Amino acid sequence: MATGLQVFGQPASTDVARVLTCLFEKNLEFDLVRIDTFKKQHKLPEFIKLRDPSGQVTFKHGEKTLVDPRAICRYLCTQFPNQGNKSLYGTGSLERASIEQWLQAEAQNFNPPSSALVFQLAFAPYLNIPQDFAAIAENERKLQQVLNVYDEILSKNEYLAGDEFTLADLSHLPDSQYIVDTERGRKLFTSRKNVARWFDTISRRKAWEQVVKMQMEHPGAFE
Amino acid sequence: MATGLQVFGQPASTDVARVLTCLFEKNLEFDLVRIDTFKKQHKLPEFIKLRDPSGQVTFKHGEKTLVDPRAICRYLCTQFPNQGNKSLYGTGSLERASIEQWLQAEAQNFNPPSSALVFQLAFAPYLNIPQDFAAIAENERKLQQVLNVYDEILSKNEYLAGDEFTLADLSHLPDSQYIVDTERGRKLFTSRKNVARWFDTISRRKAWEQVVKMQMEHPGAFE
Repeated sequence: MATGLQVFGQPASTDVARVLTCLFEKNLEFDLVRIDTFKKQHKLPEFIKLRDPSGQVTFKHGEKTLVDPRAICRYLCTQFPNQGNKSLYGTGSLERASIEQWLQAEAQNFNPPSSALVFQLAFAPYLNIPQDFAAIAENERKLQQVLNVYDEILSKNEYLAGDEFTLADLSHLPDSQYIVDTERGRKLFTSRKNVARWFDTISRRKAWEQVVKMQMEHPGAFE
Repeated sequence: MATGLQVFGQPASTDVARVLTCLFEKNLEFDLVRIDTFKKQHKLPEFIKLRDPSGQVTFKHGEKTLVDPRAICRYLCTQFPNQGNKSLYGTGSLERASIEQWLQAEAQNFNPPSSALVFQLAFAPYLNIPQDFAAIAENERKLQQVLNVYDEILSKNEYLAGDEFTLADLSHLPDSQYIVDTERGRKLFTSRKNVARWFDTISRRKAWEQVVKMQMEHPGAFE
């Protein structure tokens, strides 16, 4: 291995997906290590795919170990500035400050209601867990407020932190994709003109399409 | 984990596939640990799936480590006699001796020409490696001789070692499936009435169908 980068986790996890997208954008060589547990078959007619969007990610580079996906993305961009996409973490200090603000906004305001909706809208039906409709409504309300602000900003910029695709946008992809892939969640994005345009653009990035493909192919574990 | 069984390797590998089939037949809980190397993208238009049928398998059970797939299958059957398929390694000593003979025949006579054909007929075209037609003809000739003997025996027994599906049959599945899935290789099996009937029966085992599914879903590594 040239770089010795290792990622431990499942592509279905939104945190793992953030890191994989960053690695593909940076065109870095890496090893993905995953562990699938195959359980005894009880009454199920066949093996089912278990895609857990809340799984954790671990990243190793030599002696360095990181578990926060946004910190891993920052690390990859600062450690390998001249590889692949060079503007992912900004090219000037002002741009980087803006990206940092957006990474915090994503982690603190966007991600909590989004990941709750990912669980309720995408994951619960898949695993036959009863949906909590009060929680869905509450988190939709919170996400609508966040997306209203986004729509305003995206009426001025093509991307969140300016005119380039950066970590600010990248970090929104995994939750957004799961939500948009559900009938109820899709409206949150399509009903806002600039958010719709933005998600359409960022979700067509080659790096992200590759991650979605890996999520679809995620091999089965049965419960 | 109840049993603490771990398999390291890719399902596309014929050796890994033998072990996975045995684990599914025995209905045992296990962890599959796989490492996919994602290389830098050079000129390739997209990520390609790399399915290497010659990859190795490593098996761990507590302090015990084994790397020979047939030894791993034997171990699983003797260690967990009352789990899942109980006749996989025979129920009497005479039957077990027959299974042992077949496991040796498979490893020494069937596997060498078969794995050469797997490489030449299935793997080489897939990776755009030029096929060696002299090697194909030579290994077809060897495999025909082997399969002529099999066809004779399978005219008397339903399975190789008698009237039950055992490790003798299981161990033939991974190479055979790759060969049957190619146009040229298929004829080696379909032109022999009893071999054709036997492969048709053993390739419909639920355990094997699950392994084939995993092989199809095997995630991409790009070269």
